[in-house]
Amino acid sequence: MKYLLVIILLSFISCTSPKPHNALVLQTDFGTKDGAVAAMRGVARGVDANLDIFDLTHEIPAYNIWEAAYRLHQSVGYWPTGTVFVSVVDPGVGSERKSVVARLKSGVFIVTPDNGTLTLLVESPGIEAIRQIDEKINRRQGSDSSYTFHGRDVYVYTAARLAAGVISFEETGPLLQNKVVALPYQKAVKEDAVLSGMIPVLDIQYGNVWTNIPDSLVSLAGIQRGDTLLLDVFHKDSLVFTGKLPMAHTFADVAEGQSLAYLNSLMNLSFAVNQGSFAEKFKVGSGNEWRVKIQPFDKLRGRSTNLK
Amino acid sequence: MKYLLVIILLSFISCTSPKPHNALVLQTDFGTKDGAVAAMRGVARGVDANLDIFDLTHEIPAYNIWEAAYRLHQSVGYWPTGTVFVSVVDPGVGSERKSVVARLKSGVFIVTPDNGTLTLLVESPGIEAIRQIDEKINRRQGSDSSYTFHGRDVYVYTAARLAAGVISFEETGPLLQNKVVALPYQKAVKEDAVLSGMIPVLDIQYGNVWTNIPDSLVSLAGIQRGDTLLLDVFHKDSLVFTGKLPMAHTFADVAEGQSLAYLNSLMNLSFAVNQGSFAEKFKVGSGNEWRVKIQPFDKLRGRSTNLK
Amino acid sequence: MKYLLVIILLSFISCTSPKPHNALVLQTDFGTKDGAVAAMRGVARGVDANLDIFDLTHEIPAYNIWEAAYRLHQSVGYWPTGTVFVSVVDPGVGSERKSVVARLKSGVFIVTPDNGTLTLLVESPGIEAIRQIDEKINRRQGSDSSYTFHGRDVYVYTAARLAAGVISFEETGPLLQNKVVALPYQKAVKEDAVLSGMIPVLDIQYGNVWTNIPDSLVSLAGIQRGDTLLLDVFHKDSLVFTGKLPMAHTFADVAEGQSLAYLNSLMNLSFAVNQGSFAEKFKVGSGNEWRVKIQPFDKLRGRSTNLK
Repeated sequence: MKYLLVIILLSFISCTSPKPHNALVLQTDFGTKDGAVAAMRGVARGVDANLDIFDLTHEIPAYNIWEAAYRLHQSVGYWPTGTVFVSVVDPGVGSERKSVVARLKSGVFIVTPDNGTLTLLVESPGIEAIRQIDEKINRRQGSDSSYTFHGRDVYVYTAARLAAGVISFEETGPLLQNKVVALPYQKAVKEDAVLSGMIPVLDIQYGNVWTNIPDSLVSLAGIQRGDTLLLDVFHKDSLVFTGKLPMAHTFADVAEGQSLAYLNSLMNLSFAVNQGSFAEKFKVGSGNEWRVKIQPFDKLRGRSTNLK
Repeated sequence: MKYLLVIILLSFISCTSPKPHNALVLQTDFGTKDGAVAAMRGVARGVDANLDIFDLTHEIPAYNIWEAAYRLHQSVGYWPTGTVFVSVVDPGVGSERKSVVARLKSGVFIVTPDNGTLTLLVESPGIEAIRQIDEKINRRQGSDSSYTFHGRDVYVYTAARLAAGVISFEETGPLLQNKVVALPYQKAVKEDAVLSGMIPVLDIQYGNVWTNIPDSLVSLAGIQRGDTLLLDVFHKDSLVFTGKLPMAHTFADVAEGQSLAYLNSLMNLSFAVNQGSFAEKFKVGSGNEWRVKIQPFDKLRGRSTNLK
Repeated sequence: MKYLLVIILLSFISCTSPKPHNALVLQTDFGTKDGAVAAMRGVARGVDANLDIFDLTHEIPAYNIWEAAYRLHQSVGYWPTGTVFVSVVDPGVGSERKSVVARLKSGVFIVTPDNGTLTLLVESPGIEAIRQIDEKINRRQGSDSSYTFHGRDVYVYTAARLAAGVISFEETGPLLQNKVVALPYQKAVKEDAVLSGMIPVLDIQYGNVWTNIPDSLVSLAGIQRGDTLLLDVFHKDSLVFTGKLPMAHTFADVAEGQSLAYLNSLMNLSFAVNQGSFAEKFKVGSGNEWRVKIQPFDKLRGRSTNLK
């Protein structure tokens, strides 16, 4: 009878407490036209048939580490603790860059070459610990002679085993100093009523221009819905755009074809043309060479008047 | 002993009747180049790790509500009862359009802004009931200040909770009148032997031209395989194409490069060039401004002869 | 008490031995802009809610059977036994080509029209058996009148039932002779120190040029890292490129913008420009009309000297 109880309990446990299966989320610059991503999915599937495999995007422009960093920044915050991301934009594959697993303060893991991908995660949510992948152990069987596809042979293999609970974070490899390779970028700042920042990325599908200036700075500058803003956009040292825009609540606040400023889905100051493309219309691009300066025009005028 | 039996039964039930996990299917005009869709997937995953998340497409042309409506029309019929679709093509985000959940007569749910997305589902399979999402309850925690990404903060969040059984259809919000915002379109009609209709969409990948004229009308007009058809295509009031085509069974019925008429995968009358692009060759587009007129040429000639 | 034990055992079995759910992997030339792939996913989901559905790619260029064959070749090896692939690039839909299920020697299944898709799987991993789909039994209910979308009505339906264990391989249809429709292609050969082969495909995302010459032949020709190679590329009979390249270990072995030879992720000889596009720079394409000839330049020169 005691054995019976044990069996029942075991049975019960095996049912109600299934091995947790964490999500695996893939990002690459491979595109979706060929078989590379499918090979990665197959390797993960071979590790554990219970893994749930998702895509962040595979359309990072080839070799564009900055954009890979931004796409992680844009999405990791919406995934639950335990999710394992693989990000492979790896122009230095086979060279000396380190292969790492970073545990973020949110409990999410990122498996990636340490070449700048982690740049924007340092500020938020923050990196708790980084380990260097021990490739002697954490490498797909039979892949020793291959040296150009670490995404398949090392990264997704290690990430899948981590997500499936086959290995722990500690078993991925030795702890590194908590310091990552970081790409340079202009942080957002406020001086008097003037906000400065950069254009990290375009909202490509719609042609909207995103900045890295958060709503907190916008509030601090006293900017409110309905205010008129003066916007300057610079590429390196040349002024590409200067103009006035209303601070809108939604695109529908202005007529079709009109420009507006708004807070985007990451609560950063952004610029758009309602049902058009701000980026195309004014030939604005993105990256660290693209900077913006914004100030409330009404207050500016108000102040100028006061000074007279 | 009685307790034992209860435990065993509970254990049995928890195993053999797992909580049903319905499919969640996402459609947007966000494209797949950035992190927006991944943020939506993450929100859904955070609701329930057992949800199965699929894509309809994320490549609806920006703001093109009509095409979103058509893609739903093209695919909802193939998904089982209980599937929850999220469709976010939302140029009016933040404005007065309603956020709704529609239950179709097939038992499938659509979560979407009510801006025309539901147009083609009214006819088939029909809408059983519509509820307006109560955003006070059905909104991702911490998203109150965000107003530009309802897809992430309201729609996928509500859809995931509905698919996972966290909330019932009734709990999504108050019942609306069974009436949706509908986009205008020319329905298919038959007058004598002449069939008229519109070109709702192009089969873009191949350049085939699809109409909304169903096989039932084609049969009614007495058109059979091998018949020669006379086709006129109009854009607004101007004739863009006129020509004769055989009614074929398969593309292989005509030589490479030849035009043909056929019934497409939705059993609607369509036009193609075997291993070429009808749309490109004859500069044909799609939308409510594109109309077609088809009649059996043989019978036309036959009839003309009779009339002489 | 005996009944009790039986119940417990049944309960235990139902928990610890869930019906195996194999992966279903889809490949088409449908693109991802419309609802066709989603209709296929829905049909599979309707067969069994426990199926895991993945994508190989849907961006095979329209009607390009060769590329479909190559993408299978590139990825099937990374998926576990029992995985069922569906590959639909089917210009002859509705004509006489056979619908088949091939069981590979690796235990993976391919469901496809037998029109050349299986060409490269014959060599590796090899085909164990082929059956012709009996469409009288293996066809989605209510799809009898449709004849243009076998991918949805026959292939994915049969593949999903096979993956879910609803039908066995034997039940897909009658055994065929172990012989498939094969597309012509130039196999890789070595004559003296000269390696010849073709360019089966471009690594499109990066513009790298892949050949079908395996590392085994490269070794046999005595080519080692650091050697200089003489490469000739021909389109039909005309020489498109001739030049010298170093045999590199990784892209980082040469400066940005420099050409190199390397072994790709399938361990085939390939050519690239570090952080550039070899294919674009030298206008190189792919397919059976594109051939390459490679020889070690150092040894060539050495030998020439000897002959003097």
